[in-house]
Amino acid sequence: MIVVTSTNIREERLQELVGYIEKHEVATHVVKGEDRIVIGIIGKADPKLAEQLRQMKDVIEVIKISKSYKLASREFQPANTVISIKGVEIGGDQLVVMGGPCAVESAEQIDDIARLVKAAGAQVLRGGAFKPRTGPYSFQGVGVEGLQMMAEAGKKHNILTITEVMTPEYVDVCAEYADILQVGTRNMQNFDLLRKLGTIQTPVLLKRGFSATYDEFLNAAEYILAGGNPNVMLCERGIRTFETYTRNTLDLAAIPVLQSLSHLPVISDPSHGTGRRELVEPMAKASVAAGANGLIIEMHTDPDNSMTGDGVQSLFPDQFAKLMHDLEQLSPLCGKKFDTPKEALSV
Amino acid sequence: MIVVTSTNIREERLQELVGYIEKHEVATHVVKGEDRIVIGIIGKADPKLAEQLRQMKDVIEVIKISKSYKLASREFQPANTVISIKGVEIGGDQLVVMGGPCAVESAEQIDDIARLVKAAGAQVLRGGAFKPRTGPYSFQGVGVEGLQMMAEAGKKHNILTITEVMTPEYVDVCAEYADILQVGTRNMQNFDLLRKLGTIQTPVLLKRGFSATYDEFLNAAEYILAGGNPNVMLCERGIRTFETYTRNTLDLAAIPVLQSLSHLPVISDPSHGTGRRELVEPMAKASVAAGANGLIIEMHTDPDNSMTGDGVQSLFPDQFAKLMHDLEQLSPLCGKKFDTPKEALSV
Amino acid sequence: MIVVTSTNIREERLQELVGYIEKHEVATHVVKGEDRIVIGIIGKADPKLAEQLRQMKDVIEVIKISKSYKLASREFQPANTVISIKGVEIGGDQLVVMGGPCAVESAEQIDDIARLVKAAGAQVLRGGAFKPRTGPYSFQGVGVEGLQMMAEAGKKHNILTITEVMTPEYVDVCAEYADILQVGTRNMQNFDLLRKLGTIQTPVLLKRGFSATYDEFLNAAEYILAGGNPNVMLCERGIRTFETYTRNTLDLAAIPVLQSLSHLPVISDPSHGTGRRELVEPMAKASVAAGANGLIIEMHTDPDNSMTGDGVQSLFPDQFAKLMHDLEQLSPLCGKKFDTPKEALSV
Amino acid sequence: MIVVTSTNIREERLQELVGYIEKHEVATHVVKGEDRIVIGIIGKADPKLAEQLRQMKDVIEVIKISKSYKLASREFQPANTVISIKGVEIGGDQLVVMGGPCAVESAEQIDDIARLVKAAGAQVLRGGAFKPRTGPYSFQGVGVEGLQMMAEAGKKHNILTITEVMTPEYVDVCAEYADILQVGTRNMQNFDLLRKLGTIQTPVLLKRGFSATYDEFLNAAEYILAGGNPNVMLCERGIRTFETYTRNTLDLAAIPVLQSLSHLPVISDPSHGTGRRELVEPMAKASVAAGANGLIIEMHTDPDNSMTGDGVQSLFPDQFAKLMHDLEQLSPLCGKKFDTPKEALSV
Repeated sequence: MIVVTSTNIREERLQELVGYIEKHEVATHVVKGEDRIVIGIIGKADPKLAEQLRQMKDVIEVIKISKSYKLASREFQPANTVISIKGVEIGGDQLVVMGGPCAVESAEQIDDIARLVKAAGAQVLRGGAFKPRTGPYSFQGVGVEGLQMMAEAGKKHNILTITEVMTPEYVDVCAEYADILQVGTRNMQNFDLLRKLGTIQTPVLLKRGFSATYDEFLNAAEYILAGGNPNVMLCERGIRTFETYTRNTLDLAAIPVLQSLSHLPVISDPSHGTGRRELVEPMAKASVAAGANGLIIEMHTDPDNSMTGDGVQSLFPDQFAKLMHDLEQLSPLCGKKFDTPKEALSV
Repeated sequence: MIVVTSTNIREERLQELVGYIEKHEVATHVVKGEDRIVIGIIGKADPKLAEQLRQMKDVIEVIKISKSYKLASREFQPANTVISIKGVEIGGDQLVVMGGPCAVESAEQIDDIARLVKAAGAQVLRGGAFKPRTGPYSFQGVGVEGLQMMAEAGKKHNILTITEVMTPEYVDVCAEYADILQVGTRNMQNFDLLRKLGTIQTPVLLKRGFSATYDEFLNAAEYILAGGNPNVMLCERGIRTFETYTRNTLDLAAIPVLQSLSHLPVISDPSHGTGRRELVEPMAKASVAAGANGLIIEMHTDPDNSMTGDGVQSLFPDQFAKLMHDLEQLSPLCGKKFDTPKEALSV
Repeated sequence: MIVVTSTNIREERLQELVGYIEKHEVATHVVKGEDRIVIGIIGKADPKLAEQLRQMKDVIEVIKISKSYKLASREFQPANTVISIKGVEIGGDQLVVMGGPCAVESAEQIDDIARLVKAAGAQVLRGGAFKPRTGPYSFQGVGVEGLQMMAEAGKKHNILTITEVMTPEYVDVCAEYADILQVGTRNMQNFDLLRKLGTIQTPVLLKRGFSATYDEFLNAAEYILAGGNPNVMLCERGIRTFETYTRNTLDLAAIPVLQSLSHLPVISDPSHGTGRRELVEPMAKASVAAGANGLIIEMHTDPDNSMTGDGVQSLFPDQFAKLMHDLEQLSPLCGKKFDTPKEALSV
Repeated sequence: MIVVTSTNIREERLQELVGYIEKHEVATHVVKGEDRIVIGIIGKADPKLAEQLRQMKDVIEVIKISKSYKLASREFQPANTVISIKGVEIGGDQLVVMGGPCAVESAEQIDDIARLVKAAGAQVLRGGAFKPRTGPYSFQGVGVEGLQMMAEAGKKHNILTITEVMTPEYVDVCAEYADILQVGTRNMQNFDLLRKLGTIQTPVLLKRGFSATYDEFLNAAEYILAGGNPNVMLCERGIRTFETYTRNTLDLAAIPVLQSLSHLPVISDPSHGTGRRELVEPMAKASVAAGANGLIIEMHTDPDNSMTGDGVQSLFPDQFAKLMHDLEQLSPLCGKKFDTPKEALSV
């Protein structure tokens, strides 16, 4: 249940309302928006309480929220969340593309790729400094040094950066260097990590667990929102099914479903979602047609020798540029702008 | 393994080659195309045989086919199969849309819907006369009478028809009334049905089993092709996963995957693939962006009272018309024509 | 909803009740048991009708059945169904074991195996004459001749026989030769086959579709029961999951679940359920511990050269005999008798 | 690849061998056993190196290990790992049962339950102080205080304790209070947590991720083993499938599969594996019949009012005692001893 008041309410009166509500054995969470203030009521509230609140001064409306997640729900916030980072708006009418390698490998590599993805029109550079790997003997990423390399490349080429954070203790250092923090599929229910991300304001791209339901996914986002960080993007990256030809089954229905259940932006990852280079282009386009707010795509200058072995799903630079060109055509028909200035591509 | 000869080969010589091959404990299957003749070799052939054949007169090339399915494979036939039915071409550069109710309910109902889907630009009218139902106490379809009603509606409104056939003994009567026969998801591995469909020339839309791998799907198509019917379309209609919010998970990557493995047209079914009306539009668009050759979509004039209870995934006529309008815009950007003359829509 | 009357009711009065009920736009299905007669009401009955029936003469009780399947439900028939075939009771307190090859290959092969499985204590000989195969180029079974070979072997060695029937038109000939008819996993929802099986009295072993829910499985059984054949056994044979190390995931919880939802016997198939010879023994034992009424197990005298290529999951004769010995020990602790006379095993 | 030497080898010579190996661009990991010393070689070794090593002094054998996990593999260590904790041996011929509530709720509750599970014959008391919950508004456990309550109850009733640890920073405090640390299904690939657990010697029960393959599961165990902690138990707790009647599908084939691939003990969790109280007993028995080294079972004195809402899968004390009695009968037939002294049960 949520209680909506006007922004004209005096702080004292707001506290009075909160105090009154909390006497009824429920917790509250206050969110101050531009044109309204919302008091979220968490826990099972007495139906009479809603009736009483509705008749109180300064209360505009009282809305029951039927989901287990509250702040993430469209019922709680009907308008889309638009996350604005240095002029790039994610969740609005702009299509946002994040491109780059699976892992940062060297300063030269990331600089080269930053230049190429920027030239092709992408707004964000992706790259992992810490890599979650199935086995302990695989390449685990270059660490903090990689964060620095990527930050420099981003700065030089005037492009935002996104990188994965795997553990609460590294949240601060990752946030120091990157514009967006990514939570990987295996960490979607790493609740301590989610709680820590709730304490900062850096935007978070939360990847869906490869076997998570929509409900579990939105509850994971709720951990971050409830902690106080409203800047969450949801990322569909493929689910695990019986089909083994593709690495995962990219569940594109997740895009309109999540957009109807929630106000958060939805990004699609056709690279991990298929695990095959030749499927990235059609699935990227299909994602945009399904309404995605953005894409995150692997691109590598030398995919066959990538250090993570994930090259098999990375586009070559010219494929990435070609895809960006096609997306520019497609976007307006799918209700999205594609307006980042592109420079000449020189590989 | 397949053996390719020119079309100039004498029949006598062709039979000589076939005889020679069959002495090696393998079976053969001859397909005569416009610019070449192909002898498919079925079974494990001695590698030496390939070498011998390669050096024989009239043999242009010998190609090893690595898949368990042969005739369905892109290796066997590099060019797309285009199925031409009364001027409608499926598998070529035209986007084909099949629309209509889950089940034929009455002559009036199907006539009404035929008029509406035709007016909106669809080329094919769908409708089930025989319905596969989970339980024996559910509505099982109106039977042969329904076939007649649909055939009349199709004729009157100049639109092709597609209907589901559930058992070998009904193949002939269904083929008498409908232009395309549909094999449902539960029957994808009803091998006797597939064999029977191989004996006729009526085009078949084969739906993917809801837990079938791509390999099993193409092997099911192979049963029809091997029987002698080359007119097979593949239909992705959603797979069963752990997610229960949607009725199925529409696996759109299946579209480019099947098109790369096979030369057969691929149709997408966003209605059964999601089971929710509000998801049909975004998933239909995403299907086209992913490269689908066509769509099969449920539309009903009174979905809330449909006899199968599937109305929850059926579009209303105006939603269908709106979607067709959008697809007309989208198709050219996805390499497809959308050229069926549309008439004014009068609901 | 079901209506229970005593067996003393006059036929005339029973028909009167049925007629009264059918005036309320529902169908009926009458089952005459030893100590009660049950009128099953199919369709949505007016709640008032239950009230009226309860007060009528000769009506003992009126029970609402909440499931979509009726006759298969434990609510409908609280006591276990025990299927008695030539002295072997399936569904009672006897553990029943069915053993034999995937496919009948020759008269000699099936005779040899019949002797061995009988000697080891099995009550039923399994063997397929018609084989459902993924691709059209695989061995499809030896056909009717195989039925004859198996019938002879069964007769000679005094052991029951079970064989798979794939299509309605072969039901009669299969029933002529075999004691039990098996419906394979791919045919669980071949509704015409199920309907045909409802018209005979030969016991049917219905395998769970590899992606069928319990509810769908029991509805498939309902098709056979509703047709008039009460002799149905349910067979858990593994479901399709993301795990590929095993061919399927044997869902042993299905055993107690199905036994609680239904009165029908439940058989477990650890051979197809795992697809690996070394897992058959532990999963067979686990099935008995979970409460299975019986097992169906592949055994072959020369598994490495089996014609279906399924030898990899077939036990060798001595492994089968060893397993039977272990099951004899285990059964009494799991509430089952294991009392078939065993003869000396001579391979 | 692993290199085996006798235990008589001088330390100096051992270091010499290690140094020689590491010159070949691979890493090493030395494990000193009672009757042999093993040098694990991690990374792709030159095949010639194996040949050279085989001919060196003090080298008994060189074994290629084909799996991505090394220390966890049966190839690496053919003999079962037996973890000995205060006289309880896990992984040997004793059946080990861990029982208790989902969450520690109060000192009185855990004391009461400790007494009951001990009296029934269990060797380990389970209970969560930190609870991973899907949503942020659910009960998250009582924290460190709960650890203290459980430790006291364990001491008083002379029973080992196991509790879940969710984050690296809590590993030390959990290890201070509990005898065994549990990694939950959502944390199976929380690699930082696994690495931290590799630095201590406290036994770890690692639960299989609900969608993890056997290979991923064993690689997760490898993280702990590679860190230096050999005391790892694997726990099958059900996987996520399309079936929703049960909370998970308990994959009992995992027991013999993991025991063949690995030397680590395998524990089964029929409570979470089914999510339904009435299925715990049959699945517990089936687990033992399949060869499980132990069971972890939820028991609660007042399940309907459990704070986690998981009571629906918790046994009542008398059901737990009855199950233990049955397991005592069953164990010897499944090659396990069941020898913990039981006291009179007084609820």
